[in-house]
Amino acid sequence: MKAHVYVTLKTSVLDPQGQTIQNALHKIGFSDVADVRQGKYFQISLGNGLSAEAAREKVERIARDVLTNPVIEEYSYHIEE
Amino acid sequence: MKAHVYVTLKTSVLDPQGQTIQNALHKIGFSDVADVRQGKYFQISLGNGLSAEAAREKVERIARDVLTNPVIEEYSYHIEE
Repeated sequence: MKAHVYVTLKTSVLDPQGQTIQNALHKIGFSDVADVRQGKYFQISLGNGLSAEAAREKVERIARDVLTNPVIEEYSYHIEE
Repeated sequence: MKAHVYVTLKTSVLDPQGQTIQNALHKIGFSDVADVRQGKYFQISLGNGLSAEAAREKVERIARDVLTNPVIEEYSYHIEE
């Protein structure tokens, strides 16, 4: 069972790295890129013995308590069955 | 129009950062985590004037030529209509 976790900066938090990428894209001709935000992406492989509900609960805890800094970041995830 | 780009290390490339996270998860009790791989995630907002086909072509070029190091990384993306 594989989970995909996406951690992004909250929209209220400045993202200088994304801004730098956007500026670079403009300079090389991608002028219709309105915004770029960079985040982190995690692929987590879980043991196959877990139920869907147990996997969901585990991934939720890992994303919330380990992978995300709740002061400046938020997370989402999805689980491949 | 919003594009989501995921850049990951090729499976043949070691991921010490993911390995460190996996070890940390084991230490705090998530013993059924079999593997963790860390990648990058980009949210790209495009101007609304683009056709779906033009947007797809543009995001493909940005992902391939700018966001990914083809020696060690691979990418995937999806576009919200």
